Parts: sequence; C-alpha cells; structure tokens
Amino acid sequence: MKTDPESHARMTQRRREGHEKKQAQATVEKGLLIVNTGTGKGKSTAAFGMAVRVLGHRMKLGVVQFIKGALHTSERDFLGAQGNCEFITMGDGYTWNTQDREADIATARKGWNEARRMIESGEYQMVILDELNTVLKYEYLPLDEVLKVVNARPEMVHVVITGRHAPDALVEAADLVTEMRLVKHPYREQHVKAQRGVEF
Amino acid sequence: MKTDPESHARMTQRRREGHEKKQAQATVEKGLLIVNTGTGKGKSTAAFGMAVRVLGHRMKLGVVQFIKGALHTSERDFLGAQGNCEFITMGDGYTWNTQDREADIATARKGWNEARRMIESGEYQMVILDELNTVLKYEYLPLDEVLKVVNARPEMVHVVITGRHAPDALVEAADLVTEMRLVKHPYREQHVKAQRGVEF
Repeated sequence: MKTDPESHARMTQRRREGHEKKQAQATVEKGLLIVNTGTGKGKSTAAFGMAVRVLGHRMKLGVVQFIKGALHTSERDFLGAQGNCEFITMGDGYTWNTQDREADIATARKGWNEARRMIESGEYQMVILDELNTVLKYEYLPLDEVLKVVNARPEMVHVVITGRHAPDALVEAADLVTEMRLVKHPYREQHVKAQRGVEF
Repeated sequence: MKTDPESHARMTQRRREGHEKKQAQATVEKGLLIVNTGTGKGKSTAAFGMAVRVLGHRMKLGVVQFIKGALHTSERDFLGAQGNCEFITMGDGYTWNTQDREADIATARKGWNEARRMIESGEYQMVILDELNTVLKYEYLPLDEVLKVVNARPEMVHVVITGRHAPDALVEAADLVTEMRLVKHPYREQHVKAQRGVEF
C-alpha cells in the first residue's frame, strides 16, 4: 500500500477521525470477563502478556493454573516471584496422564476454591484461570457454579479464562472473546520439539 | 463430556499415546520464526507472554516496539526494568496520528536497525518485533530486506513478529503462525474503554 503524500495524509486523517470517534463513545469502565479459546497457540500466553501489563501498573494479580500443575513452567517461576502476584498451580498434569476422573475432579475443586476466594475478595485486579475451559469441558466443575461466581465478581475485577472449547454459556457471558486459530505449527509440520522460552 | 470410569480411562489412554507419539517424532530444535496476526486481540499480548517465559528461563530478550513509541505502555515499564531485557520503542504513535509518511519511514528504519543488530548478534534468545507487520503493510520498510535478515538469523534465535495483515511471504517463511480472530469485543459492542492492565 504505497500512496502519494497527499492521499496518505487524507487516509491517515480519516483513520484518526474514526479512531477518535470510537474512543469518544467508549466511556464505560468495568472489570472484563475475557476468554481466550480456539485450537491455536497463544491462549495462555496472551493471558500472561496481560499479567505483564497488570504488574507493570502495580495492580495485584492472581493466577490459578488448572491442569498444568505437575509441569514445571517458567511463567510460574517468573510471575510467582513478583511481589504483586499470587500464583497457584493445581492438577497433576494433563488429564491423559492421570487417567483418574475422581482425582481430577477433586483437584479441580481445590483450584476452583482458590480462584473463588481471589475473585470474591476484590483484592486482585485481575484473576487468570488458566485452562479452566478444559476443566469445564470434562465437567470436572459445574459450569453454573463457575458462571455464578464470575458474573457476580466485584466491579473492577478482570477475569481471564483460557483453554480450548470454551462453553457457549461462558462465551455468551464474556466481554471479550478471542479465538486463537492455528495457521501453521512447527510441531506437526516440521517435527520441531517444544522450545524453551516459547512454549514452556 | 461425562463418561464412566472405564471409558474415561480408555479415552485418556488413547490421548496419552497420541501425545507421546507426537513428542517422540519431534526431535528438531531451532530458533523459530513466530507470527501473530489477524484482527482480533492478543497478538502483542501473546508475544509478551512468551517474554515472560524467556525471562523465567533467564534467557536474554530483545524487544523493538514499532508504531506504539509515543504511547506509554506498562509492558515497557515492566519488561524494560528486567535485567535480561533490552526494550526499545520507536515511532511517534499510530500512523494516523503522525500523517507524515517520510517521518514514519525514517522512524521505521531506526527501529529496524536496532532489531537487525539484536537478531544478528546472536546474543538474544528471543527478539520480539511488535507491530512490524503494520510497518510492512505500509511499505515503510522493504519486505525483502526484513525477510533476508530474519531467514539468516543465528540458529537458536526466536523471532516473534506481531501485527495485523502479516505479508504472505512472511507467513510462508514462518514456523508458527497464529491468527487471532475476534469473537466478541467490549469496545465496539458495549462502548467499554481500553482498560488499564488489559490493553495497555
């Protein structure tokens, strides 16, 4: 898109006006329910990117990692070491490793109790529930109970929920839903292994 | 998806085998070219989530933020304050604010010189080029030049490029491409303003 200086100025002026109009209309402030779903990469990763922003503003962050509890993750090392962050990991690894539905349900319940405490306290400006969608898909927790707590959250608390297969009712309740769609993936196509710093 | 214990165990066993088979085939290690594109949210955010992982592993991170230079961002406050991170911001805000194509080109060139230095040095295990796709779309930098440097990067350097409208040739060269697709957005639909900790 190469243009002469005059039409470039006209185009950027139009964009600026459109942007300013949208900004002027956007006056509501509230804690958002944010859902990152889809089968592509970047769902948890984008949540941890928001964690960076929250901590950069010296706001308080809570994280409950469902599912990935048994895995050592560098996000836990890094974010958990920050003063303004409480980082809890739950779960005995991916569900295909435990093969025990009752144990998974008990672990999900423990994680949810922590999540609920964080949300209801109103002390955390953002609570990230990593892989909660997966927990809901397997019906390890009742969706109704989760929705009730999330919908009744204190006004300025952002809740971020990640994982494939977000339930329809959660998508409906959310303020911001992004689907991460896989275009190309080195694992599958090139037999590249999971890389330190990229995927864990 | 509620199942009896036996079929649950069979299903999780199958998943485990599938996962282990994929892992066994994945033996290649290399620096990846990662592109986050699409019109949805989470492109830069997911890049900053990878930044958390890189810093959690005590690897060295370089960031060049194109376009957003004049905006104050909390990711810059937070990541830029980490010992292992060099964080450079370039640009005088979004292009529709400057309305000066020649100035934008000069700023893009300055940012690219820093990016090129970081990539070619081999000292940074990850280099994030935030909003570079936008710079390429406006042809502020020649795509060929960018591709040449990125494709010739030292073996274990990950390069992450974000922004809408990734050029086809960049998608082709990439190892991992994710399209962030908007499902619901509070700005447009509910007039919610950009929220501290979520979007900046």
